Amino acid sequence: MEAKLPSESRTTLTDLVLPSETNPLNNLFGGELLARMDRAASIAARRHSRRIVVTASVNHVAFNKAIPLGSVVTVEAAVSRAFKSSMEIFIDVWIEDRESGRRSKANEAIYTFVAVDETGTPVKIPPLKPETDLEKERFAAALRRKQLSLVLAGKMQPKEATELKALFEE
Amino acid sequence: MEAKLPSESRTTLTDLVLPSETNPLNNLFGGELLARMDRAASIAARRHSRRIVVTASVNHVAFNKAIPLGSVVTVEAAVSRAFKSSMEIFIDVWIEDRESGRRSKANEAIYTFVAVDETGTPVKIPPLKPETDLEKERFAAALRRKQLSLVLAGKMQPKEATELKALFEE
Amino acid sequence: MEAKLPSESRTTLTDLVLPSETNPLNNLFGGELLARMDRAASIAARRHSRRIVVTASVNHVAFNKAIPLGSVVTVEAAVSRAFKSSMEIFIDVWIEDRESGRRSKANEAIYTFVAVDETGTPVKIPPLKPETDLEKERFAAALRRKQLSLVLAGKMQPKEATELKALFEE
Amino acid sequence: MEAKLPSESRTTLTDLVLPSETNPLNNLFGGELLARMDRAASIAARRHSRRIVVTASVNHVAFNKAIPLGSVVTVEAAVSRAFKSSMEIFIDVWIEDRESGRRSKANEAIYTFVAVDETGTPVKIPPLKPETDLEKERFAAALRRKQLSLVLAGKMQPKEATELKALFEE
Amino acid sequence: MEAKLPSESRTTLTDLVLPSETNPLNNLFGGELLARMDRAASIAARRHSRRIVVTASVNHVAFNKAIPLGSVVTVEAAVSRAFKSSMEIFIDVWIEDRESGRRSKANEAIYTFVAVDETGTPVKIPPLKPETDLEKERFAAALRRKQLSLVLAGKMQPKEATELKALFEE
Amino acid sequence: MEAKLPSESRTTLTDLVLPSETNPLNNLFGGELLARMDRAASIAARRHSRRIVVTASVNHVAFNKAIPLGSVVTVEAAVSRAFKSSMEIFIDVWIEDRESGRRSKANEAIYTFVAVDETGTPVKIPPLKPETDLEKERFAAALRRKQLSLVLAGKMQPKEATELKALFEE
Repeated sequence: MEAKLPSESRTTLTDLVLPSETNPLNNLFGGELLARMDRAASIAARRHSRRIVVTASVNHVAFNKAIPLGSVVTVEAAVSRAFKSSMEIFIDVWIEDRESGRRSKANEAIYTFVAVDETGTPVKIPPLKPETDLEKERFAAALRRKQLSLVLAGKMQPKEATELKALFEE
Repeated sequence: MEAKLPSESRTTLTDLVLPSETNPLNNLFGGELLARMDRAASIAARRHSRRIVVTASVNHVAFNKAIPLGSVVTVEAAVSRAFKSSMEIFIDVWIEDRESGRRSKANEAIYTFVAVDETGTPVKIPPLKPETDLEKERFAAALRRKQLSLVLAGKMQPKEATELKALFEE
Repeated sequence: MEAKLPSESRTTLTDLVLPSETNPLNNLFGGELLARMDRAASIAARRHSRRIVVTASVNHVAFNKAIPLGSVVTVEAAVSRAFKSSMEIFIDVWIEDRESGRRSKANEAIYTFVAVDETGTPVKIPPLKPETDLEKERFAAALRRKQLSLVLAGKMQPKEATELKALFEE
Repeated sequence: MEAKLPSESRTTLTDLVLPSETNPLNNLFGGELLARMDRAASIAARRHSRRIVVTASVNHVAFNKAIPLGSVVTVEAAVSRAFKSSMEIFIDVWIEDRESGRRSKANEAIYTFVAVDETGTPVKIPPLKPETDLEKERFAAALRRKQLSLVLAGKMQPKEATELKALFEE
Repeated sequence: MEAKLPSESRTTLTDLVLPSETNPLNNLFGGELLARMDRAASIAARRHSRRIVVTASVNHVAFNKAIPLGSVVTVEAAVSRAFKSSMEIFIDVWIEDRESGRRSKANEAIYTFVAVDETGTPVKIPPLKPETDLEKERFAAALRRKQLSLVLAGKMQPKEATELKALFEE
Repeated sequence: MEAKLPSESRTTLTDLVLPSETNPLNNLFGGELLARMDRAASIAARRHSRRIVVTASVNHVAFNKAIPLGSVVTVEAAVSRAFKSSMEIFIDVWIEDRESGRRSKANEAIYTFVAVDETGTPVKIPPLKPETDLEKERFAAALRRKQLSLVLAGKMQPKEATELKALFEE
């Protein structure tokens, strides 16, 4: 299979924060943002693989910045690395100030999806070829994250996670 | 006020068609698409004006193509012409085939929004400066549509609608 | 097929404006009203044709009056003219003041639906026989609107749109 | 206060059964119908009292007839009797067959609402004057139901519930 | 079939009151609570019968206590008596104060469900064996409620409703 | 402040998987499960702290098991460790088979919440005192996870993360 570029799967979901999606401080519920990111990421995974895709895991997500009611939120998702049948999707979340028009980063998240056929069996997908510096950096880090995930799941010995181990030895 | 470009207000909302949004033929409900287009258009209007915006009218919308359950739908909205406090927003709707990845046009729509202050009073907004050929064409047509709208609302005499009248005299 | 009366398809949908349906000014979102009108109109079209119906187009809709949170909104839809397999539906939207009980017109809209069979193929429908003066007026105007729609879609030459052309010649 | 007629509060909510509202047999969820009836009944109570109204109780509701996905459901609510600050609302639910156009009764329910001011304190409301035979019959039965409700709540001795007691003595 | 205990069907649904579920006084809509109770009760009925279940009726429900926006609401449902193919489900609704942590009773309701097969035909279900005093009391009362329900539906003569009749003769 | 037990914050949310929450394979959307877990976890955090709480982060979540349409899903959340103003919440997700009644583990997740006052400023919360073996094990692991989170966020040097480092040195 021919490699694809991150730009081929990039997905933009710009939408409002509606009153039904806010917590008692009038900010977007964490759970609602997780659901929006899942939808955008699933479309990116589908664009890369052209297959049915299912959420396999969500990496650590930090909610650093509250997103108030009425905000315009942009969720941008793109494949950051493709493995045999799974893909890591990197998601950037931006909000913009209505009066100044200034756009600022609100969140980042990383989801993993698996491409499957109609019976739910994993299928082979094309590799990813990163182009920009940011894409290359995320591509490299994706391997360390995969190792960490295997270690945490008890499917890889910590000492085999060479990329990750190096982090603690420097 | 300084003129703005259509690209400054361009808004992309890519999302899935969920089961709760489909009719008995398993296609996206017309009403649901109208609501999605309204949200994307309102964000475009807000990006151009940096004000609170309210829907003023919807031009003729034709639903030429059914959008099946599970489709990835992209709604792209951008300001096509700005008047004193109202803006015309042109909306293109695309769907893409999962297996081939081919993208095709599903719909077009034109909404008008008015920028208001906190009391709901209309406020002045920046003019629009179209750049591409398509943007210029839509900019020109917007004036004819405004005249038609005024004629239909009985606020302009048909003979005063010079741009529109020309259409029937050729 | 025997002609039917507008009263046979008249559909009333009275409901509240809920908090999840309002914009930052605490008024009903334009998009939400478009979706409600679509549901009421589709029922009217179904009552006239006794077939599956799909939204074909929405005519110009003006949002003249804000509809505040907590309002009681009545959407009334009825077939205004039937063509071969398509129907024009005229929709009146009313709101009522809680304290005085006074009812006032908030909006008007015109949708077109097509009757189809299970495969989505258009099917023949009964003609409409208007009775009241208002029904007769809307019946006549429906033809001009159909011509305008054909002209705008490039499917009819402006000079062939005799009813419409007359409007600009007076 | 001047008496009002049931027709002054009559409220009609005709809408579709959407896929998100159905159970595993593809019929409308009981809970969803209860919620729709509550909205229609609250509007009828508000039209009679011109006050804020809150649900006080729901009488026995039997779900005799399944309502399949895609049905057109009509909920009709009207005040059946007014007490000091509470109102009994009688609700009839109809479904119609798409092909024959035949309308059949699917359910009946009785809700009680209380009219309150902005602080939630009950306020006095106008009496009801029934006109038709059906309205008069429901008006009479409402008193028996109120007694039964007071007996069940332990707020009235069974022997004081004269209307109700008679039922068991015949 | 072997008898089951109420604890085997007990179902707990603790969730927040969201902004989209509140009325103009900022309290949970009666209709929304009815729908939540229906979902919890249907799960209890399903746990007892291990069958598809459908709502058959709702007994008298009184809304004694307003449930404000942002509350944590706990709906607890358990089978209170099983008949041939129908089950009575008793539902307790609790709210808790955030600051004191104190839990108080907000509502009680009784729903009846019927167990059916894939064609919608009622099927036999296991009997219920109450254990605690409260469970025994609700078990006994369930029979009186069934008689009342049959009397009100005209399916039992008042004089045959011996348990119920006794109530008015004391 | 006095320490609290995990059982004091334990929150159970048992509910159905509805048609509007499923993906093209008819399984619960990952994003929808993330949102449900966020609601249950926020209630557990609120019960422990008796404060307004906001989602701070989501740890790695793996979706090991598909959850089909119509399933009964139980989300159980309890505080697993309390820090100064943040709490780690451990969430177990169970599904049960309708026919056998057998309950099986579908997912695990870990969320972090922060307790804040009305202005959004973090406030001090009570410590947690684990009781059972499982609670003690999760309590211990919570510290390693916090270190990992600080390392990944660049707020702690890898070599300072003593608990975590040990993992790679064994």
